[in-house]
Amino acid sequence: MCPSPAEDHSVSRSSVSKADILRSARAQIEEKGVLGLRVAEVAKGANCSLTQIYRYFGDRDGLLAQVLGDIYEESLYDGYNKFMARVKKLPEITIEDLVQMLPTPTQYAAMVSQEVRLQILATSGMNSQLRRRIEASSQLHIDDWESGLDYIEEHLAPGEVFDRRMFSIMLLVQTMYYRTLLGDRGFTDEEYQQFLRDKMGSK
Amino acid sequence: MCPSPAEDHSVSRSSVSKADILRSARAQIEEKGVLGLRVAEVAKGANCSLTQIYRYFGDRDGLLAQVLGDIYEESLYDGYNKFMARVKKLPEITIEDLVQMLPTPTQYAAMVSQEVRLQILATSGMNSQLRRRIEASSQLHIDDWESGLDYIEEHLAPGEVFDRRMFSIMLLVQTMYYRTLLGDRGFTDEEYQQFLRDKMGSK
Repeated sequence: MCPSPAEDHSVSRSSVSKADILRSARAQIEEKGVLGLRVAEVAKGANCSLTQIYRYFGDRDGLLAQVLGDIYEESLYDGYNKFMARVKKLPEITIEDLVQMLPTPTQYAAMVSQEVRLQILATSGMNSQLRRRIEASSQLHIDDWESGLDYIEEHLAPGEVFDRRMFSIMLLVQTMYYRTLLGDRGFTDEEYQQFLRDKMGSK
Repeated sequence: MCPSPAEDHSVSRSSVSKADILRSARAQIEEKGVLGLRVAEVAKGANCSLTQIYRYFGDRDGLLAQVLGDIYEESLYDGYNKFMARVKKLPEITIEDLVQMLPTPTQYAAMVSQEVRLQILATSGMNSQLRRRIEASSQLHIDDWESGLDYIEEHLAPGEVFDRRMFSIMLLVQTMYYRTLLGDRGFTDEEYQQFLRDKMGSK
């Protein structure tokens, strides 16, 4: 919470929590995007001084590493958990089930999180703390997907052929960004789904 | 060229060319990255005033749209031209030739242009002029690739099966960024090449 002017100075310094500052930084990012984040605005939003922010996070890069690392990690886990929740409702899994559950190009185009992830990745090119954080998150996250793919293989409907590589490699190389730039000139949802169906359903 | 202080003022204003400013902006980007570009530094590098830059480009976004749009377009054409120059040396084309010509994950990791393209894409999320420019470039560029893929199909070695979709969809969805974050935990060059071989060489 924000210190009132009447409070003792030493108390007011410690009364701004890290969580308050992170909340303010997130609100700024939602409003202005990752690249437009200004520490002065974060301080204003948390009703704190710049000094208080720097005491917790070192510098602007330290603040960004924490808040963007958190957003990145949450978006990875959120994607995985939502997907697996749907998978686990199925008594048996077919390739068609998986094709229908994977996002299509037009869904990607509508996804704000694609834009935010792209900005986080771009920022990590010049912020080594953030880069280390998202590397660590990604490396942990891949273990989740490996166990998710084990689950899928164990629950495949009889006779189904599933090329796990198609799923796991696409997971690691795919962003829809270039496709999105093409607008109507790009492949359609149906073409993409047929592609997945053919490639994931044969080895 | 930059005006000397002795020159008439009206002459000095017009003597800074658009090209000089763009050259200075590129030099700044090479040194500090896309996200760190400051118009004041570009002006300093071109030995011009901010006013002169704004006269040509409107504002910072206008300058970025031009210089990043140029870099993006060149990187697309450069990739295409280099690939097709190699393809056109082959009397007959096999799937294995294509697999060997496509960049592997460890090559992507070493590519500076991957990082630069990512920064350009991220910037385009908040700069609608740049966004329109790279949309237009991408849409023109896809025609080149369609004719390149026609060429490949016409020069396939007898008996070769080529799934053109695998090439064109991967072209539009693939960045190696997530793979790069995984370091040693990600798939290997050999695994990736085997994946391409299997998927591109069957329908």
